[in-house]
Amino acid sequence: MKKKDIYLDALPLEEAKDVFFGELERAGIFSKKSVEEINVSESLGRITAEPIFSKISSPHYNAAAVDGIAVLSERTYGASETTPIILSKGEFEVVDTGDPLPPNMDSVIMMEDVNFISDEKVEIIFPALPWQNVRLIGEDVVATELIVPENHRLRPQDIGAILAGGHVNIKVYKKPVFVIIPTGTELVNPGEELKPGDIIEYNSKVFKALLAEWGAEALIFEKHKDDYYRIKEAVEKALKIADGVIINAGSSAGREDFTANIIKDLGKLLVHGVSIKPGKPVILGLVENKPVLGIPGYPVSAFLTMELFAKPLVLRMQGQSFTEREKIRAICTRRIVSSIGSEEFVRVKIGKIGDEFVVSPLHRGAGTITSLVRADGILRIPANKEGIEAGDCVEVELLKDKKEIENTVVIIGSHDVAIDILANEVKRRYPEINLSSANVGSMGGIMALKRKEAHAAGMHLLDVDTGEYNIPYIRRYLRDEKIVLVNLAFREQGLIVMKGNPKNIKGIEDLKRKDITFVNRQKGAGTRLLLDLKLKQLNISPEKIRGYDREEFTHLAVAAQVAGGTADCGLGILSAAKALDLDFIPVSPERYDLAILYEYFEMEAVQKVLEVLRSVEFKEKLKVLGGYDTSLTGEIIGGD
Amino acid sequence: MKKKDIYLDALPLEEAKDVFFGELERAGIFSKKSVEEINVSESLGRITAEPIFSKISSPHYNAAAVDGIAVLSERTYGASETTPIILSKGEFEVVDTGDPLPPNMDSVIMMEDVNFISDEKVEIIFPALPWQNVRLIGEDVVATELIVPENHRLRPQDIGAILAGGHVNIKVYKKPVFVIIPTGTELVNPGEELKPGDIIEYNSKVFKALLAEWGAEALIFEKHKDDYYRIKEAVEKALKIADGVIINAGSSAGREDFTANIIKDLGKLLVHGVSIKPGKPVILGLVENKPVLGIPGYPVSAFLTMELFAKPLVLRMQGQSFTEREKIRAICTRRIVSSIGSEEFVRVKIGKIGDEFVVSPLHRGAGTITSLVRADGILRIPANKEGIEAGDCVEVELLKDKKEIENTVVIIGSHDVAIDILANEVKRRYPEINLSSANVGSMGGIMALKRKEAHAAGMHLLDVDTGEYNIPYIRRYLRDEKIVLVNLAFREQGLIVMKGNPKNIKGIEDLKRKDITFVNRQKGAGTRLLLDLKLKQLNISPEKIRGYDREEFTHLAVAAQVAGGTADCGLGILSAAKALDLDFIPVSPERYDLAILYEYFEMEAVQKVLEVLRSVEFKEKLKVLGGYDTSLTGEIIGGD
Repeated sequence: MKKKDIYLDALPLEEAKDVFFGELERAGIFSKKSVEEINVSESLGRITAEPIFSKISSPHYNAAAVDGIAVLSERTYGASETTPIILSKGEFEVVDTGDPLPPNMDSVIMMEDVNFISDEKVEIIFPALPWQNVRLIGEDVVATELIVPENHRLRPQDIGAILAGGHVNIKVYKKPVFVIIPTGTELVNPGEELKPGDIIEYNSKVFKALLAEWGAEALIFEKHKDDYYRIKEAVEKALKIADGVIINAGSSAGREDFTANIIKDLGKLLVHGVSIKPGKPVILGLVENKPVLGIPGYPVSAFLTMELFAKPLVLRMQGQSFTEREKIRAICTRRIVSSIGSEEFVRVKIGKIGDEFVVSPLHRGAGTITSLVRADGILRIPANKEGIEAGDCVEVELLKDKKEIENTVVIIGSHDVAIDILANEVKRRYPEINLSSANVGSMGGIMALKRKEAHAAGMHLLDVDTGEYNIPYIRRYLRDEKIVLVNLAFREQGLIVMKGNPKNIKGIEDLKRKDITFVNRQKGAGTRLLLDLKLKQLNISPEKIRGYDREEFTHLAVAAQVAGGTADCGLGILSAAKALDLDFIPVSPERYDLAILYEYFEMEAVQKVLEVLRSVEFKEKLKVLGGYDTSLTGEIIGGD
Repeated sequence: MKKKDIYLDALPLEEAKDVFFGELERAGIFSKKSVEEINVSESLGRITAEPIFSKISSPHYNAAAVDGIAVLSERTYGASETTPIILSKGEFEVVDTGDPLPPNMDSVIMMEDVNFISDEKVEIIFPALPWQNVRLIGEDVVATELIVPENHRLRPQDIGAILAGGHVNIKVYKKPVFVIIPTGTELVNPGEELKPGDIIEYNSKVFKALLAEWGAEALIFEKHKDDYYRIKEAVEKALKIADGVIINAGSSAGREDFTANIIKDLGKLLVHGVSIKPGKPVILGLVENKPVLGIPGYPVSAFLTMELFAKPLVLRMQGQSFTEREKIRAICTRRIVSSIGSEEFVRVKIGKIGDEFVVSPLHRGAGTITSLVRADGILRIPANKEGIEAGDCVEVELLKDKKEIENTVVIIGSHDVAIDILANEVKRRYPEINLSSANVGSMGGIMALKRKEAHAAGMHLLDVDTGEYNIPYIRRYLRDEKIVLVNLAFREQGLIVMKGNPKNIKGIEDLKRKDITFVNRQKGAGTRLLLDLKLKQLNISPEKIRGYDREEFTHLAVAAQVAGGTADCGLGILSAAKALDLDFIPVSPERYDLAILYEYFEMEAVQKVLEVLRSVEFKEKLKVLGGYDTSLTGEIIGGD
């Protein structure tokens, strides 16, 4: 084993696309599309494989457009209030809307304008114009007129017009069929018991859903262990029944080589490695004139490379063009460092604060599928840029509707499980409103308000001198802002320790023990400030604490490290300890407030969030969670 | 029978909505939602009925993030090029990406940075930081963390995250089920033979497709004749199996009374008549605590009232909010008259000409389903406005993606079937490009260019003095514009007459015959100018011609009137006569050109349209149509 030069041929994205799609074009993948005839009523969302011309005119006869009487217009000329005209049987005929116009009549008078003297005689006081209230033959569509062109995705109204045009069946493109082959010895199916090293195989389900959204069908093969011949066999089998194959490599480099070699063995390896991040180890090939894609195993890499390569492929196989996502200009709130040579795709949260969109980067690890759940957009950093500075104006591709982002209340600051609960209650009660939170610590929240990057900030900042929470910090750092401070809850901070407290930790003073590994919160977190205050009071130097430098961003992340055994304890809230079934040693109660910028206080969405905050249901849910005192929840603590 | 006071209680739209949704809310329709448990893999597009918290942490163990060797970081401190450190078996362990971190090790060194001396010894020249290249427990999601809230529509990435969170099944809202009851004695099924007075029943298929788009399921009952008791029976049967019922009245007023009375008999009639146009005769009720909607029969009225009432209903039944369509500001190109007292919904074409969006109203008849196919947007005219003036800036709801509209080449002017063929060829070859045409006649096209409402105009305007086509008109009316004139084709104009020419029409001079009814084109149409020129040459006064005042807007519409027997002849092109199997008496060949505003000539979409225009395939299709000479097709005739 030696240093390996992997992906030496990593291509820039556009070049990789050119190579792949150029080869597919030459292979005729996009020109020879399979067609099937289906019933018009079942054609929603399908793509027409031929122009659809009307077979008949609609209406196919001259029809009464209203309920009334049909007449010959010439016979009514001169009618007025003072000189009414009486029409006798034969000169008029009662018609309902849609009835054919009787022969030798050219006009319909609305029922409301007819005075019936008897069944045989009517009086009219207005003349009728020729063809008034008549739907002439072909008013809607004339036989042979184009209803919808080829390559058109059918909508409900198209279905109506095509049926009106006399069609029962039409030709559409067959949905492309893809076989997905999950590979990896470490994979287990959802629901199976998990041992260390096992990975739940869910990429294939994500791919199937993506393919469905793009109009293709997917067959998921049984997962395969890392076995060259078995996987090769599966690919050969897949090629017999599918229009394309997706091999989902696990995360081991060894297997990616399998995919590349299998493609080489069976057909043509076109691309191995693209200089994008995440998603570098993507593999693109052509076997038996069918596209075969090797998609990386990390879920974010997988999702992005599916979007970049499989989406345009699937759309073009159906004669559809690839339309880019909507883009907006936004201010980047934080510095994002990126390496030269790779085009980076950063998932971001987007908020609309006042008139401006602001973006904050999410976790950049390729393994965090939740970053895609939380993301509102994708920010691309070109290969030749080293990153983006805080305050830069950037272009962002939207993953959500702009409206949805505009209806989002952005809370940046300290993390509390109660914010998740609040977000859920808001969505339940007001589906149109979203609450988005980012965890950057209490001080981070204050800075976010100062820079107008959030509507509100969550914080629990104890002022050592006064013993007061939050207000002194707001006075100090947000001097120029008007703020409304609303209480979220009082909560208990304490040491989160392993179930049963095996190391017999009694309080902060034990943190200096040599046998104890601590896990800390990031700088600017209220919890860290609390720790530092306690250490100062106890005269313990931070260097004495093993793990003081190891930072996590949320209470739950701290608890997870304790649960996972990489730390013996961490400072956090009771609900986090309870969530992961850990023990808790109370250290200090504290007040957690939301500081809301006054200029957004009257915003409808903010008011609705506050309404939910004050609801009995929300307070009940906090009580169930434990460790919260809701006696002031939703009350205005102060304004500035 | 007397004048009827129908819809005396027609309510303003917002009031009707308040009455309907208020009553549904009180009935608890939106608070008691049915829930079902389904497999996560099958949940794409479904709505969560509960918040989904992670059951496990992901990763659930500390995992190697790369291929390499696991080490204890402390053991590597001090390693450098000059002072490499040698690790022996036991001090390192080879790990693949995703492997669990071995006990007592806290760091992974990438394979590329390791020098293997033997299987038992490695050399490193960089120190490892604690936890480097390690995915800590819960990096993606920590057990108990919220993955997605209640009322959330599930996307592919959500499916991945929920599976990663340890779920196999989740609770989602059941899809609401609606029964659609088509009623009307005049209805026939698609594909059945059509007699005068028959109407193809397609509304139910449009409704089913709309409901599918909104997340509901639909059952279409057999169509019912206009029979009070039968329809009532059907409604009662529907209520047993559905969450809501949609009765689709035909177009006769009599039947709408049936629907209202049936609802009154069975439950509560809430709204009968809404002051909107089209869509006034909508009926809304509540029977057995289930919504029952009486939707008008005209297809456009039906579509709009479904959108206005059924869409928010269906969405709210699934805990979803109704998000309005994207709106843009646009310049209205033509005067639109609207009646006071009704809120009018005008279907419009939208074009982006330069930096500005411009809208043109489409056919306003409630019976023209094709107007919904052609529409790019809906322009609402409030009940208290008499209309909109040409040049007014208006707000328009988009029915299409803005991108799609921006990729549309707008051709306004004379009608020719060849433009339909061209539009189809463009869509076939370049799915991302649309060609939109509006038929307002050659002079209308010139005026549209002058007002910058189109990229190009189709025209065939003969200058009597010079015998030249188009150029003299462009010189006269578009003096200040730079124009590129491109030939579409030469074509034959003539009299379109009934098959076999029963009235023995020989030419224009026969139009003055008393026994002949003519159908004309609208003012400003090149064909009408040609007629006027010929009449002048023959010294025939227009008043002599029966039907001179009856105007149609397209060649096909003229042909349709001849085919339908409401006229004996009309002037038009050979392809229109052939399309409807009519006879044709040649009158004059003429040149049809596209005048393109020079400032848009270089636009990518315009260039692609020209490329298609010049293609062999397009010319071949024109030849098949007949009556076209393509010897100059695609050539630049002149520029100005």
